[in-house]
Amino acid sequence: MPFTHNRTVHFQDTDAAGVVYFANVLGICHEAYEESLETSGINIKGFFTGSSVAFPIVHANVDFLRPMFCGDKLAVSLMPQKLGIDKFEIAYEISVDDVVVAKAITRHVCIEVSSRSKQELPNEIIRWLETNRRDAEGAERRKSREVI
Amino acid sequence: MPFTHNRTVHFQDTDAAGVVYFANVLGICHEAYEESLETSGINIKGFFTGSSVAFPIVHANVDFLRPMFCGDKLAVSLMPQKLGIDKFEIAYEISVDDVVVAKAITRHVCIEVSSRSKQELPNEIIRWLETNRRDAEGAERRKSREVI
Amino acid sequence: MPFTHNRTVHFQDTDAAGVVYFANVLGICHEAYEESLETSGINIKGFFTGSSVAFPIVHANVDFLRPMFCGDKLAVSLMPQKLGIDKFEIAYEISVDDVVVAKAITRHVCIEVSSRSKQELPNEIIRWLETNRRDAEGAERRKSREVI
Amino acid sequence: MPFTHNRTVHFQDTDAAGVVYFANVLGICHEAYEESLETSGINIKGFFTGSSVAFPIVHANVDFLRPMFCGDKLAVSLMPQKLGIDKFEIAYEISVDDVVVAKAITRHVCIEVSSRSKQELPNEIIRWLETNRRDAEGAERRKSREVI
Repeated sequence: MPFTHNRTVHFQDTDAAGVVYFANVLGICHEAYEESLETSGINIKGFFTGSSVAFPIVHANVDFLRPMFCGDKLAVSLMPQKLGIDKFEIAYEISVDDVVVAKAITRHVCIEVSSRSKQELPNEIIRWLETNRRDAEGAERRKSREVI
Repeated sequence: MPFTHNRTVHFQDTDAAGVVYFANVLGICHEAYEESLETSGINIKGFFTGSSVAFPIVHANVDFLRPMFCGDKLAVSLMPQKLGIDKFEIAYEISVDDVVVAKAITRHVCIEVSSRSKQELPNEIIRWLETNRRDAEGAERRKSREVI
Repeated sequence: MPFTHNRTVHFQDTDAAGVVYFANVLGICHEAYEESLETSGINIKGFFTGSSVAFPIVHANVDFLRPMFCGDKLAVSLMPQKLGIDKFEIAYEISVDDVVVAKAITRHVCIEVSSRSKQELPNEIIRWLETNRRDAEGAERRKSREVI
Repeated sequence: MPFTHNRTVHFQDTDAAGVVYFANVLGICHEAYEESLETSGINIKGFFTGSSVAFPIVHANVDFLRPMFCGDKLAVSLMPQKLGIDKFEIAYEISVDDVVVAKAITRHVCIEVSSRSKQELPNEIIRWLETNRRDAEGAERRKSREVI
């Protein structure tokens, strides 16, 4: 099973069209990323603030399949993947009642903060990538078997 | 015990000073209000969208006692109070590791949406006010006894 | 010349890494879209609230080339393009001191709000698309000539 | 005349009730503060990021007199006041078409960032306080005369 973050849509997430404001969907995906890191034992405060290494997002994309409303119970699953020695990407799928309502991707590079030069992914991130990738693949295999 | 909403500080809540952006603290309080309403059986989607009655905030204030950092585990307790037939207010207290880091108040009036004229509080809100007030008072009494 | 929205980076746009939070970049692009619509004579309040026709975003993507800091003077240019009778997309380019720092795209479909069914683009949007497309092409032509 | 920041209400500022989300009003006030500092010659990037001195908000309050809608043209005036050797507050008034729609206050203390201990206001802030206070008082005097 891929890591899944459960998140209710807050009033603040919505806009005057009555649904979640599009850019906020990426913020919700990032919350799932943070929770996944924390679940794997990474200290979030140190990870995102004050560390000499950072993982800025260089690309993001998102597809909106259905509107999300205040009070909706979102299940945000994430499947990270190593792309090279200094980068990885995360695929997110957001569902409401088992119906996919949005899909997104964020691509991250590892940099040394002061120089902003690229740097190899540290071990704790490699472990996180491996754990969550394996989990996601397990889910994919199960899905394939169900289809058969 | 007052209703308490548990909430991790997200990266998005923070600003370049490395702590939670001041106005976001009020948004976090509002999340606690939403969760409290939902816990008492109120349909959040209907409550905040598309109803003929709404409860806009006419006043808010907040005191910041200590900075909040990404990853901090916030406990947001709330104690609502009826102020009249058409208004109520909510007092919030945010703690990290049992240390109060912020206190806030939001004051709400009940209006009929299309005319924006004041209106009596509906029964579901009166029940929510009574339940949560009693709970909060119970906590206060326990606190007093502990002091003695 | 493509339509350009000038926008200073606010403190609230930033996160604890000291730069603009990634998802906020899409919000800044949307501001440019709103200002462009308004400049072409469209009533923004009616356009985004209470109209029977809406233009929800079905896809967005963004590339981050350089970090943006509090106080940075952003120039957000936009080039919309009709994609069919019921959809259009907008390409954005954000620059600081004539250096491109981010590029983004938002793709919109026209729907009838109550049924959420697709609908032909109304005349005011077609006019906006034509005006801004022409302007953007003019800029491209000028650029090509300069290169020659 | 007090310093006035002109700001259109963006779609992102609104919520599913169709009006500006309450906490965003404080964010809009903070934008006015940033613009006022910048207008007086203070470097915003240095002021809010990476300086050894910071001015965190210890209290904020806001009264909402009328709802604000997407596209509304806000005029946000601000009147700062020194409260002591290490603190100041700012009063904000937001108007739409010369009708006041919200009033707010933010109270700031000056701290040395690494120790978070209180510190005397630096000269550039004292100059900013004096300039803007005088301007605001001038406006008050003119208003009184008009009443007479």
